[in-house]
Amino acid sequence: MARLGHRGGFIGAVGSDPFGEMLKAFLVNEGVDVRGVVVKKARTSLAFVLLREGGERDFFFHRLPWAETADTMLRPEDVDLSLVTEAHVLHVSGVATAFPPLSEAVYAAMRHAFTAGLHVSFDPNYRGDIWGSGEGALKAMERFLKVTTLLTMGLDEAVNMFGSEDYRAVAERVMEAYENLHYVAIRLGRRGAYVRSRKGEAYAPAFEVKAVDTTGAGDAWTAAFIVFHLLEKKDLELAVKLSNAFAALKRLKRGAVTGIPRRRELEEFAKNLGVGLG
Amino acid sequence: MARLGHRGGFIGAVGSDPFGEMLKAFLVNEGVDVRGVVVKKARTSLAFVLLREGGERDFFFHRLPWAETADTMLRPEDVDLSLVTEAHVLHVSGVATAFPPLSEAVYAAMRHAFTAGLHVSFDPNYRGDIWGSGEGALKAMERFLKVTTLLTMGLDEAVNMFGSEDYRAVAERVMEAYENLHYVAIRLGRRGAYVRSRKGEAYAPAFEVKAVDTTGAGDAWTAAFIVFHLLEKKDLELAVKLSNAFAALKRLKRGAVTGIPRRRELEEFAKNLGVGLG
Repeated sequence: MARLGHRGGFIGAVGSDPFGEMLKAFLVNEGVDVRGVVVKKARTSLAFVLLREGGERDFFFHRLPWAETADTMLRPEDVDLSLVTEAHVLHVSGVATAFPPLSEAVYAAMRHAFTAGLHVSFDPNYRGDIWGSGEGALKAMERFLKVTTLLTMGLDEAVNMFGSEDYRAVAERVMEAYENLHYVAIRLGRRGAYVRSRKGEAYAPAFEVKAVDTTGAGDAWTAAFIVFHLLEKKDLELAVKLSNAFAALKRLKRGAVTGIPRRRELEEFAKNLGVGLG
Repeated sequence: MARLGHRGGFIGAVGSDPFGEMLKAFLVNEGVDVRGVVVKKARTSLAFVLLREGGERDFFFHRLPWAETADTMLRPEDVDLSLVTEAHVLHVSGVATAFPPLSEAVYAAMRHAFTAGLHVSFDPNYRGDIWGSGEGALKAMERFLKVTTLLTMGLDEAVNMFGSEDYRAVAERVMEAYENLHYVAIRLGRRGAYVRSRKGEAYAPAFEVKAVDTTGAGDAWTAAFIVFHLLEKKDLELAVKLSNAFAALKRLKRGAVTGIPRRRELEEFAKNLGVGLG
């Protein structure tokens, strides 16, 4: 949000250690509101990325179910719900729904946001080591999906959780199953992205780039879609195109977070491609 | 041991993750015997070092008491005691005595080694976040000290655990308290090192170097003392001098493990200083 020129805030828990301090300082430096950041007497959760030639990557985590770390210790009473309703959109990653008390804090925040009329964006972030199977994940996420308005996911998650590579059929089926969904967006990797809304659908092919690091490209896509469609109200097709462009720019840079492009870079890229960002 | 030209082996648990694989591969590459390495379905314990200008450092760990990780999961039945008695010396760090089941596995191995007539080397590695106080640590370590023949520690640990900066008095008192101790070695940082044995004592000043990274310098000192005095039977004063030289060389290189010098470097350094390595 911040790098795309909008105000953003983060709600979550870090540990009482140098990584926690570093993460908070990084957010502050990027202009992100950190009033919702809580420090727990625990270790900051860690994500390690094994980056391979060609930009593909594997992850492993120091976090539940492996070891208990700060992020899953966030309690419902740690979350100031009035911060949530200062926003237009609440975005949640599915990994925040897997373990209590964090899962309960997240559910309370999502329900509060939904009831207040915010857009609630949710990305399942399916991981085999947490949920064991796509069906298990879907079952665990049902109550969260019921208060979601924008569901975004990668095609591999659509396959794992909804059992089909036919992304249009998956989107249609999911929209039917969860009546509060306004949008289902499916990122198709090298094939681009597809979004279905209550009024129509849009598809745009990916921009081909020589990927350095694909880590965070999906999250970058979702951030751009929230910015361009939900906040700036650009039409669906243009928003998908711009989100594809933003994700492509992310792939050119190393770092899941530090590698997130800035609005100025997207504007440059879009201009060269003849895509209006106006 | 391996870098000083002797055979060494490691007994302990790593996690079922890339760090565990990396650590095991590193040991194999150094020629260390890894038959005693067990892989646990857990995360590999992590140590983070904050290196400051001038080589001083702070540590923090992803490990108990903060989060349960692989190393403290080693169980007594995981340790093949016949591996222990293949060695001349068993070295143990105090951090391995803090949490069960590892503490019990370590105690069994130490008692087995002691009973079989091996030298048992022990370094308390006192950490405030584990033991709370020096007295608490000492109390918890009593049974381990009773089967120790070589106790090594830094002056700060002597102060924390034995309440005095007077290292000669501390060494004398500790030798009296634990009758199986043959040696008490106290590393004095920039002032050098002091060793008391049942037959005498030795002191040698430190070699002044422009430190890059002091991490692991104490462990390097202890490894060298084990090699030169316990294995190669050099006299106490020469062994202390060589250990001081080895620790000084360590300080010149970055990395607690990768920065451990090799015997050839020590020989060069000792030759230039006119210290015989015979």
